[in-house]
Amino acid sequence: MKRVTLLTDFGTVDGYVGVMKGVLASMVPGAFLDDISHEIPPGDVRKASRVLGRAWKEFPRGTVHLVVVDPGVGTRRRGLAVKAGGHFFVAPDNGVLSGVLSAESGWVCVVLEDVELPGMRFSRTFHGRDLFAPAAGRLAAGTPLSALGQRISDPVHLPDENMMEEGLGEGWGHVVEVDRFGNLALNLPADAVRKAGGVMVEGYEIPLRETYGEGEEGTLLAVVNSDGLVEIALRDGSAALRLGLVVGARVRLRS
Amino acid sequence: MKRVTLLTDFGTVDGYVGVMKGVLASMVPGAFLDDISHEIPPGDVRKASRVLGRAWKEFPRGTVHLVVVDPGVGTRRRGLAVKAGGHFFVAPDNGVLSGVLSAESGWVCVVLEDVELPGMRFSRTFHGRDLFAPAAGRLAAGTPLSALGQRISDPVHLPDENMMEEGLGEGWGHVVEVDRFGNLALNLPADAVRKAGGVMVEGYEIPLRETYGEGEEGTLLAVVNSDGLVEIALRDGSAALRLGLVVGARVRLRS
Amino acid sequence: MKRVTLLTDFGTVDGYVGVMKGVLASMVPGAFLDDISHEIPPGDVRKASRVLGRAWKEFPRGTVHLVVVDPGVGTRRRGLAVKAGGHFFVAPDNGVLSGVLSAESGWVCVVLEDVELPGMRFSRTFHGRDLFAPAAGRLAAGTPLSALGQRISDPVHLPDENMMEEGLGEGWGHVVEVDRFGNLALNLPADAVRKAGGVMVEGYEIPLRETYGEGEEGTLLAVVNSDGLVEIALRDGSAALRLGLVVGARVRLRS
Repeated sequence: MKRVTLLTDFGTVDGYVGVMKGVLASMVPGAFLDDISHEIPPGDVRKASRVLGRAWKEFPRGTVHLVVVDPGVGTRRRGLAVKAGGHFFVAPDNGVLSGVLSAESGWVCVVLEDVELPGMRFSRTFHGRDLFAPAAGRLAAGTPLSALGQRISDPVHLPDENMMEEGLGEGWGHVVEVDRFGNLALNLPADAVRKAGGVMVEGYEIPLRETYGEGEEGTLLAVVNSDGLVEIALRDGSAALRLGLVVGARVRLRS
Repeated sequence: MKRVTLLTDFGTVDGYVGVMKGVLASMVPGAFLDDISHEIPPGDVRKASRVLGRAWKEFPRGTVHLVVVDPGVGTRRRGLAVKAGGHFFVAPDNGVLSGVLSAESGWVCVVLEDVELPGMRFSRTFHGRDLFAPAAGRLAAGTPLSALGQRISDPVHLPDENMMEEGLGEGWGHVVEVDRFGNLALNLPADAVRKAGGVMVEGYEIPLRETYGEGEEGTLLAVVNSDGLVEIALRDGSAALRLGLVVGARVRLRS
Repeated sequence: MKRVTLLTDFGTVDGYVGVMKGVLASMVPGAFLDDISHEIPPGDVRKASRVLGRAWKEFPRGTVHLVVVDPGVGTRRRGLAVKAGGHFFVAPDNGVLSGVLSAESGWVCVVLEDVELPGMRFSRTFHGRDLFAPAAGRLAAGTPLSALGQRISDPVHLPDENMMEEGLGEGWGHVVEVDRFGNLALNLPADAVRKAGGVMVEGYEIPLRETYGEGEEGTLLAVVNSDGLVEIALRDGSAALRLGLVVGARVRLRS
């Protein structure tokens, strides 16, 4: 019962995802191959990190998560295989795993050796096929992590936006994610927003509610979302479109 | 050999689908998880109902169909689990299952109890993760329907557009679906269109043919489509773009 | 351990892919159903052929590849089932398999009989459901190819753009594919580009490099891509957008 999840910025139109699925299916014929997303905006390591952080823990222990969002393909960035929280991860060393590594103690991380093994191809342009999928396949087939490369302790780390303290003393934060529904996730601490009763953005005062359904149609509201973040939403509409806001826009506690 | 199909309006960019797949894989490690669609327009319950109606019967008996198109998340709308036609369905009670319920006699429907079970989270914003996927997982794992909640007999019902009689005495109908290829499905009865020899729309007289291939390139034609509905199509093109029509546009029998 | 891959131009919004998955799951309950792509531009047989050519060989022998990009549905074009390179293929006879057939010797090809079998539907508009998926299901279930129809030796063949010699004597070629990242694949022979040191396009002189990472940010470069083709790329950007080029645009060897 081996499962490998796939998370990339490849889209599906070009078949690159299909290529990786083929590599995995050839190495582990009985593996379930589950798409998480292939619609990460090209090169958006931070979005991929958020999506991975949301999804990986829901899968059973032993699942292998193959993450290929790799703007640095062909540079000297390293490839990683990680064991953390009972799961396995394979990804480029660009910070996409830093949420996992921050949340889990006792992780082990190795650098994938990008040597050409017998029977391996090694392109400089498609490490998903030639480096990452084969590593994920080996892990799913039961190869121990230590066989994939030398252990390291310094994988690239992205700063955790949700924790950013900058300006929070004065009650400022910003939009950290906009989802398909136009909901705006913020890095203001939920407790502080509860205390203040809401947030201010673009001159709007937005009250904190328990659920999307409490707002009247057409009015903005804030809720604590399923990731535990404060989120601005518009009932039956898109808060992002209504407010014209994108990731990075400044918000503050209601005063 | 358990299969769970997934049908949502989540898109894939945010990873919410991956979250639900993880919940299912943790509950039923050997389950096949098959995407039907995640590109239902946000909140479009009617489109989801059509897509479900097209796909569910093709799967083997015992399949669990998880449908999360849920504009009412966080309101008091109920969550449902249904057994009908030998299949299982889990969905919000907003009419998305009404096509299934109309077509199948002898269905059984229960209301999902939204109580927090031991070890369960219960967000007010992501019932896909916290209510619907766990219910689908329990059904796929063999839990009987009756264990999921109290039986009800009044699930929300959408009127069946295909059956709408309004105006049909005078030969009028409308566009009920536009697909990716720009084909326009109508609610005019196939028999009536056969008798009339075609339909009228926007001043065009469109003949009924046996197949798309019978039209000359660049000419509009009507066919009876794979759902049994009359459909306006344009060979090697999009009838929707050519005619500038969307769902709801009025059509009538050729006179 | 049966696997069926699916490659279509259906998109996913309408559920047609789900319909085919249901047909397959009903015929072969233990089959893994792996999406390659459903975002082929409608009717783009050549793009589908490229995507298939990239992906199929990566899968294990015995995999069944179901390809439905079928602008001729409802015309007299034939349906095919093919065995080649130890894999099976089911597709309309419009050239989408010609890459496979050119690359593999010893293929066997039969014409799918479009007779109505007991229990079969036969629409004129959705051969994916009524002809191709059932044939793929039969192959995955172990039915021999010869049981599906009469052997033929003249499937439709698309000319292989990558091999086109036209003008290449004078060092001219063209863009044969644009991928999601805006990379432009060319049909200029890699050896000739190596010798010339690069390519010319729209007045730009573009040097051949080993990898995407060798370019400075914002500069165009050429690499040999994972398909073995010369490709124009822009580090951290889209060469297609920068140059405003699409499939068919003329390029030449650097002189």
